[in-house]
Order: sequence, then C-alpha cells, then structure tokens
Amino acid sequence: MPAATFDETWMREALTLASRGLGLTSPNPPVGAVVVVGDAIVGEGWHQRAGGPHAEVLALADARGRVGDEILSKASLYVTLEPCSTHGRTPPCVDAILAAGLARVVVASTDPNPLHTGAGYGLLRQAGVELTTGVCEAEGDHLIRFFSRRILDGRPWVIAKTAATLSGHTVLPVSAGPWISSAESREDVQGLRRQCDAILIGGETLRRDNPHLTLRGPLAEGRPQPLRVVLTGRDGLPRESHLFTDEFSERTRLHQGISLRESLTQLHDEGVSAVLLESGGRLLAHAIKEQLVDELALYLAPVFGGGPGHLQAPGSLLADLKNLQCTMIGPDVRISGEFSKTRSFLR
Amino acid sequence: MPAATFDETWMREALTLASRGLGLTSPNPPVGAVVVVGDAIVGEGWHQRAGGPHAEVLALADARGRVGDEILSKASLYVTLEPCSTHGRTPPCVDAILAAGLARVVVASTDPNPLHTGAGYGLLRQAGVELTTGVCEAEGDHLIRFFSRRILDGRPWVIAKTAATLSGHTVLPVSAGPWISSAESREDVQGLRRQCDAILIGGETLRRDNPHLTLRGPLAEGRPQPLRVVLTGRDGLPRESHLFTDEFSERTRLHQGISLRESLTQLHDEGVSAVLLESGGRLLAHAIKEQLVDELALYLAPVFGGGPGHLQAPGSLLADLKNLQCTMIGPDVRISGEFSKTRSFLR
Repeated sequence: MPAATFDETWMREALTLASRGLGLTSPNPPVGAVVVVGDAIVGEGWHQRAGGPHAEVLALADARGRVGDEILSKASLYVTLEPCSTHGRTPPCVDAILAAGLARVVVASTDPNPLHTGAGYGLLRQAGVELTTGVCEAEGDHLIRFFSRRILDGRPWVIAKTAATLSGHTVLPVSAGPWISSAESREDVQGLRRQCDAILIGGETLRRDNPHLTLRGPLAEGRPQPLRVVLTGRDGLPRESHLFTDEFSERTRLHQGISLRESLTQLHDEGVSAVLLESGGRLLAHAIKEQLVDELALYLAPVFGGGPGHLQAPGSLLADLKNLQCTMIGPDVRISGEFSKTRSFLR
Repeated sequence: MPAATFDETWMREALTLASRGLGLTSPNPPVGAVVVVGDAIVGEGWHQRAGGPHAEVLALADARGRVGDEILSKASLYVTLEPCSTHGRTPPCVDAILAAGLARVVVASTDPNPLHTGAGYGLLRQAGVELTTGVCEAEGDHLIRFFSRRILDGRPWVIAKTAATLSGHTVLPVSAGPWISSAESREDVQGLRRQCDAILIGGETLRRDNPHLTLRGPLAEGRPQPLRVVLTGRDGLPRESHLFTDEFSERTRLHQGISLRESLTQLHDEGVSAVLLESGGRLLAHAIKEQLVDELALYLAPVFGGGPGHLQAPGSLLADLKNLQCTMIGPDVRISGEFSKTRSFLR
C-alpha cells in the first residue's frame, strides 16, 4: 500500500473518533486524533466537550499509557483539524505535540478561523516536525461545517428537515394517520437531532403538533437534550404544551416577536453551532428565501397524493442545491443536499 | 461455487440477452437463452421480433454452429421463460428442445398465460429432461411484466414519467429555462422510451410543448419509433405540430373524445405491451386515480421551489407504491416504484 493510502486509513480512524463528538462540543468543533507507531494505533482521542481536553492531548496521553513515553519519537499523530497554537480554555496543542517529540504530524482540515489559519502548521514546521496536510480534507471539512459557519459567518449551520409524499404533499388524508414518514425515517431524524444543539419550530407547529422535540432511545443516553426553540410572532401559545411542561422545560426557548435572523443570532450567542429546523412549510419557505438554510433533509414517503398542503416556496423562488444524495430509509427515500447560496451575518 | 450459484450466473447471461429485446417483441415478451456445456456458453439467442424465431431455437442453432450436434446431449439450456408448448407463429420450442436431446433445462419464469402455465414443464419432464425452474425468478418476472399485464389484465403496462423540483413544483420560473430535468435525465428517459411501444400525452402537452416524442441517438438505430398517442377531448389541436408533420407522422395516433381506458384498450388491440405516459399533471393524476398507472418514474431536479404548478393529486388521493428505488442521474434524483393497486380490464 502506498504511504498516501496508509495516511488515509489512519485519518479515517481519526475522523470516526471525531464524529463521536458531533452535538457535544459546541461552540468547539468535533476533532479526533490517533497516534500510530509502525502499522498500529497506540493512542486514540476525541474532543468530548467545550472546556475539556483536546483530541491530540487525549490521544498522546492514551499512547503514553499504552506504550510509554520514549517510543513517541517514532510516532505519527493523525488529527482531523489543524492543532491549536493559542491558549484558549486549554493550553495550545502544538506545545503538547512538541513536548512529546513526535516525528510526524498528519492533518485533514486547516483551522477555518482567519486569525489562526496555518499558525499551528508554522510552529510545527519551525520545530522540525514532518508535516502532511490535507489528508481526507473534504471529509474533515464536512465534519466541521457547523464550526466553520459559526467562525466565518457568525451564525449556526441550519439543517431543514421536512417530509412529504412523492407528489410534494405535506399532509395526509386523516384516514392515513398522523405520520407521513415511516418509523425508520423518524429514527433517522433522531440521528439529525443528536448532531444539532437546537431544534427550531414555529408557533404554528407547536399549536398543531404539540411535539416533544427530544432525543430518545439509546442515542439520548448521557447526552444533553437539544435546546427547543419556538419562534412566534404572537401571544397565545398553549402553556400546557409539552415543551413548556415536560422534564426538559428549562431547555425550551421562546423567541417571540423577533425575526428568524435575530433568533439565530441569539442562539449563536448561546454557543449553538447547529440548528435543526423542524418547522412547517411557511417558516421553512421563509428561511430558504432568506438564504438561512444550509442543508436540506427531505423524507419522501412511498405514496403519491395527500391532503391539502404542498411543500411551499414563495413567489418563484428557485434555490439551487449541491452535493445531492439519495438513500432508502426503510420504505422512504431521504434526499439531502446543501444550498448553494447562504447568508453570512458577518460580511 | 455451488450448483445453484452456477445456475444463477448462466441465467443472468440469459436475462441480459433477453433485455435486448425490450421494446422490440410486442405483443410477445422478451426472452433470452444460453446453451452451456461444462463451464462454457456454447450458444446464445434472444427473441428479436414477434413472428421471428424464439430465443431457445436461436440459442440451439448457435450452439450447433459452434460445437456441432452431438455434444448437445451433454448441454444445459438456460431460458428466461417457460418454453412454449403450442404452435403459434412458430413451432413449439419444447419440440426443438426434445429434438436436440438436451440433458437439462433451467427456467426463470413460468408462462403467465393460464392456458399454458406449466404445460411446457410437463412435456419436458414427461420426456425425461432434467428440469429446474424458478432460477432468478424475480428478475425474470420483472422482465416480462409488460407481457404479464397484457395476458392477465388485458391492457398495456403503463409507466408514468414526470419531473419536478424537490418541492414538487412542475414548472420553473421562465428565467430558469424550459427544462426541469438535466440532460442526463432526458437521456435516461430515452432508455424508458426504448422499452415502450407507445408514448401517450394529452392535448394540453401537445399545445404547450409541441414535443417530438422520438427515440434519438444510438439507442434509436435500427429500431422502430414508438407510437405517439395524443389523447384529447376536443378539436383544435395545432395541425402543424411535430407529431403530425415530421418524418414519423404515420406513427402518430389521435385518440379524440375517448377515455384513457378506451385509449389503452385500442393500443392493446394494436399489440402494444408498454405505454410511457409523458402527459402533464392533470392526465397523470387522472390516470393514477383510475389505477391505470403501473410504474412511476419521477425525476427530481436539485432545486427547491419553482413557478406556479405542483404535482397534482385529485381530492385526497393516496396511492401506495412498492419496490421504491432511488438513483442519482447526473445532478438529479430518479425515484421509481410500482403502484400497489392497479386495474384489470378482464376481471
């Protein structure tokens, strides 16, 4: 196997570790790292919560415990994001790497923060560490897309989740029951919720569905529940709703009389990196028109037709998506993609 | 490799040969056959047109030419459909098989015609030929689904093709150009047209789009053009339309003042086994409501929104689909499936 392929193999291990942190690390990005000696992983680490130790430090500590200090001079560190070079809530990872005397460092993605971009690389090279960057960069960039939106655009990444029939109908005839999508798709949505720090709906959805918007099942264990945000223009929300009365009611935010943009700014200021928009069609169409949706997750049920109610789009809106993908989720089709044009709050 | 796996390997070769006949053999089904001695194919055949020789006869003739007569007593014949036992426009294939003295016959699908079902099997067994049936049966049944609909329900199989955006909009804003789906999807539609004997539209589509509805490109070479059927309730179709004036105008049928059901019956009587419905939304919704659509091919473009116009469904129609599949076709998503409830003209 050529060296490049080895590098990708180890980096994929680091990416898998990093993905465990999705939904846990905001406002930090998820990061993973492995320490490799010869053809074996001797240390693993992933960033588990903001304020906690970084992936590199955990992986080095794991390696020290498993094979001792001395062998680290023959080791390579694979890390999914450029090591930090500044004091944040923890000391800089570059210092820890240099102290360990590592022979080589391999990185997937460069720090998107313009204040830090390439600074970690410079310090490592200056100290004589062999450095390879950009290994599995696309996967690495995808993994930190929430963080990049936060840093570069001053707002959370927004995933809009919606369900319809094959004809774009969003409502079923009453006789067909309340759910458009299957149990499998609803389980898949739990996977989306797990990655997001907040779930946002409009007052309309609260009144009509009285949803719980919670993480449930094995995915929920040991995790904080996402914030549950109701964006509404008017009074009169039913105070007996689950969101205001259940055991997680302190995780509910009422955003009344403010715009979606203002709501997202408030969430950003609370440290939220990713928002799952589970609203009805009107708020969804508004959000797309305002270029405030980054990603679409559309669940299509295997039926044609429905009750009155279609996926909406204001006027002759036409929003392009890229990186379209389709997958069968149980009996349904899930289509996901990223909107080509999105709004920054900074520029 | 166990014998069963060998059988499937050879049957897949026969199925591939059979599929070459799609769109050419109506009112007969496409059929393919291979003759195998030891671990080699020594003869191949596929049914090329109604009235022409059957696949089994062609495969046996091919084998005779390649390895001679005598070795056939050690040969196995793999054929995608139960060999015919009656005189049609050609002598029964069972006679040809027995005359060749084959050791073994392997079949995918049983003849769906209740008058013939199992008759070929009986004659072969009676003559002491080793017989295995049901190998790759699902694929075989799928390949002859047009024929089965004809035989069992007295009407053609109807594939409805339509295109929309991810929000179910069927019209683009004028500024976005005339095509919802990509060049790749339009090429994919050529593949559908190639399988069908007729393309059906309503007068509305003729007036609005003035389409050609022809087979084009390499797929068209040496093939008859499909019938082009316009189903319309009223006079006043533009006589200068391509369908009435181009070089294939003798392949155009004007079905005026009759129902869709009557139109399909007329096509059935002309020997049509498969119809591609490329109409607008109103006729499509009517056809689905009347349970006259067997299969849906929905092309979704990677955009959200559109001009005024949605995929339609009358009232609170909700038609279930099964065997849903999704595939990327260039930048688009194609979703296909079969309607669970369809109408028979015989029962």
